[in-house]
Amino acid sequence: MSPGKVLALTGGVGGAKLGLGLAHCLPPEALTFVVNTGDDFEHLGLPISPDLDTLLYTLAGEANAAQGWGREGESWTTLETLRALGGAAWFQLGDRDLALHLRRRELLDQGARLTEATAALAKAFRVPQALLPMSDSPVRTQVTTEQGLLAFQEYFVRERCAPAVSAIAYAGAEDASLSPELAAAFADPALSLIVLCPSNPFLSVAPLLAIPGLRAALAARRVPAVAICPLVGGAAVKGPTAKLMDELAMERTPAAIARYYDGFIDGLVLDQQDEAHAEAVRETGVTPDVAPTLMLSLEDKIALAEHTLRFGAALSA
Amino acid sequence: MSPGKVLALTGGVGGAKLGLGLAHCLPPEALTFVVNTGDDFEHLGLPISPDLDTLLYTLAGEANAAQGWGREGESWTTLETLRALGGAAWFQLGDRDLALHLRRRELLDQGARLTEATAALAKAFRVPQALLPMSDSPVRTQVTTEQGLLAFQEYFVRERCAPAVSAIAYAGAEDASLSPELAAAFADPALSLIVLCPSNPFLSVAPLLAIPGLRAALAARRVPAVAICPLVGGAAVKGPTAKLMDELAMERTPAAIARYYDGFIDGLVLDQQDEAHAEAVRETGVTPDVAPTLMLSLEDKIALAEHTLRFGAALSA
Repeated sequence: MSPGKVLALTGGVGGAKLGLGLAHCLPPEALTFVVNTGDDFEHLGLPISPDLDTLLYTLAGEANAAQGWGREGESWTTLETLRALGGAAWFQLGDRDLALHLRRRELLDQGARLTEATAALAKAFRVPQALLPMSDSPVRTQVTTEQGLLAFQEYFVRERCAPAVSAIAYAGAEDASLSPELAAAFADPALSLIVLCPSNPFLSVAPLLAIPGLRAALAARRVPAVAICPLVGGAAVKGPTAKLMDELAMERTPAAIARYYDGFIDGLVLDQQDEAHAEAVRETGVTPDVAPTLMLSLEDKIALAEHTLRFGAALSA
Repeated sequence: MSPGKVLALTGGVGGAKLGLGLAHCLPPEALTFVVNTGDDFEHLGLPISPDLDTLLYTLAGEANAAQGWGREGESWTTLETLRALGGAAWFQLGDRDLALHLRRRELLDQGARLTEATAALAKAFRVPQALLPMSDSPVRTQVTTEQGLLAFQEYFVRERCAPAVSAIAYAGAEDASLSPELAAAFADPALSLIVLCPSNPFLSVAPLLAIPGLRAALAARRVPAVAICPLVGGAAVKGPTAKLMDELAMERTPAAIARYYDGFIDGLVLDQQDEAHAEAVRETGVTPDVAPTLMLSLEDKIALAEHTLRFGAALSA
């Protein structure tokens, strides 16, 4: 369907769902992921990369889909013991998930960049696609709330997105550079399409756009870039997207999403429920397209991936 | 039996056994342990303190006695997953043991000294005795072998003590200082006895003696110091003591142990099998005493502890 390579920019669960669909549509070497690391932090000495792991576990068929994070069939012996010892148990690491984090710690301690550590983990999970962190330099999403400045995980996990948000910053992004692997992916002459997965614009995609090199590479793209609107009927499928749009005084419409991605996308896939918004999207200079964007089953994911690839191919024609 | 306080210097399994016996004989506030940290290292980002943990688990009734390390009733989900991911699984951390290490990492990351982190862990395990690391500064036992210089755990766990040893060094000991807690324990006017537990002289006790402040405090003691000979009939109960004595060209006799601890002990408890060596010990200037030193049952441990306390009391009379 797509003769060239696809670069998929992704964050959390929604992005990983489309990622799985794309993985079913494309040969492994034709699909590269660029993954948000703004949610990363260090916890109990372990390097935590939630979005990388959500994608990795999803592609490996190990994700706990009901829960939205962590692994299927997980046990909790270490966390329960840690809690009994008075340790921090608010960030839930299962026994198997912990092993991945210890391995990442080991690889980083041996001098691997996060990109290299991620490649080793993907190989261990027999995931053949390239998973590239958005940068090897630390970028940390920080949320200014009515309770003051919160690190992302404090806001997201500890406070469960409850405090009203007035601003979001991406600390370190200005100084973050593109990894050689990511620069090569953008420069690859076989690249044919860039996909912005249906992830939270502020928390999953904006951290990528905050990195000057990534921003420039996207703006200078020679191939179409297509986003999937994360809203369905003005609501988010999952997570705080809609709440954040209200708090940041942004209209909860596909056109607002199109304007938010101004200069970085050529097309926007809207959910079929939002067909009436297509004209408003077109008025922003972005080509609209309509498809079922809810991804409940694997078939849904594959269908949306196929649709997105067709749409991208049509845009470049 | 002992009206004052006891300071017990200890290393691995043998020391922990006598420690448990002492804990049954003394009120908790009358027993302070000074524990070897020369075996400590960092692994997978976790601070590993084998001798502190052996003692802690033993006093808490959680030690796996058959195995000689780790916890009773342990599970291995994380380690098995780590191995499957290609990670270092040679150092065996069970799921529950891992929680202790994560908690120690957390406490140290919060700025606690190792002494403070150990106190918090002891409290969590409801161990009322004071467990003091020999120093808060890192001291690392290094073994010069026919295979070159090995870190302690490489020699002990990975190589299983197989390479012949020509020298042992305690890196960092010269610059290590006494913690305020340990200095206070030595200066305590209620202190009545110092016990050198039956631990490996080179690997468990010598690292303590290599710390100038600890060495000086022991040499300047105002109370008797008693060691329990780690040999029984010229052999070690456990571990590489006898092999090391051969390699370091030291006679495998109680008198050689007494000379090794020259200036640091006033009495030496020999096993009943070694009664014939008592005179040779006395000739080194150290008072010999004879007792069953094999500690198989809890009763054995308590009996040796009682014997040691009586011997110490007699020496100070």
